[in-house]
Amino acid sequence: MDSRNLPIEKLSFDDCWELLDTDTVGRLAIVVDEHPEIFPVNYVVHLRSIVFRTAPGSKLWGARMERPAALEIDGYDPSSEQAWSVVVRGDTEIIEDQAVRDAVDGLGLEPWQPGEKANYVRLNAKALTGRRFKVNRPDVWNTRLQDRRRASFE
Amino acid sequence: MDSRNLPIEKLSFDDCWELLDTDTVGRLAIVVDEHPEIFPVNYVVHLRSIVFRTAPGSKLWGARMERPAALEIDGYDPSSEQAWSVVVRGDTEIIEDQAVRDAVDGLGLEPWQPGEKANYVRLNAKALTGRRFKVNRPDVWNTRLQDRRRASFE
Repeated sequence: MDSRNLPIEKLSFDDCWELLDTDTVGRLAIVVDEHPEIFPVNYVVHLRSIVFRTAPGSKLWGARMERPAALEIDGYDPSSEQAWSVVVRGDTEIIEDQAVRDAVDGLGLEPWQPGEKANYVRLNAKALTGRRFKVNRPDVWNTRLQDRRRASFE
Repeated sequence: MDSRNLPIEKLSFDDCWELLDTDTVGRLAIVVDEHPEIFPVNYVVHLRSIVFRTAPGSKLWGARMERPAALEIDGYDPSSEQAWSVVVRGDTEIIEDQAVRDAVDGLGLEPWQPGEKANYVRLNAKALTGRRFKVNRPDVWNTRLQDRRRASFE
């Protein structure tokens, strides 16, 4: 089958949020000195925004600093033989309110790698896009489990 | 155990390239109108650079256009209970030489999603960084297979 004729399905907002809810690791892209930076983050969904923790004092996430960012997740569903990806675009802000920090801690938020990650950063979604498509060689994709990763470092 | 005291190991260039050689899907970050964009790509390593295919005519990858980009891969090794990530930073260029295109096709390069992807883009590495660390809750990570994804759409 020539998959160049296969459709790429656009996901609804609800589908996108459901996938974001069930995953725990995304990759965040930001712009630093006009160059793209990208790194994995553990995140939780809180009030239909993305929250993650980072190290304090970083030039990337100064207090009260807003910067545009994009978070991406992707995966593969063996039962439907479909791959998918979701991208959240928006601006980030530092969470100063301890009650909100406690709330996201209660959702299981942990940093992706060890080290002090005292900053809580929220990515407010301005745009949300998702796509899903049937792969042409599921035999290869089926070697992969559902991509659910979770690290807890406490 | 308080994993905040666990070391984060920096990977050597050789380790980074070995991980890049064995993976096939990364996430590429670029800057568009001062905002970060991020999307998954199938890639191959060719002459110690990253090569992937994209749709032609896109504003992202005009002919002879160079732009800074960063590619990230990550994964988890159940045998050592370690997570890792590798980031390649550099500039991209369109590959015009058909012999080079044939060479990377021979390495199994396929686009991540269906559709015509006539552009071949090379990311020349200017900086290469990798990190690896032992996770604190391998029980959670062990649910995940080695993250080797490969889609072929021809």
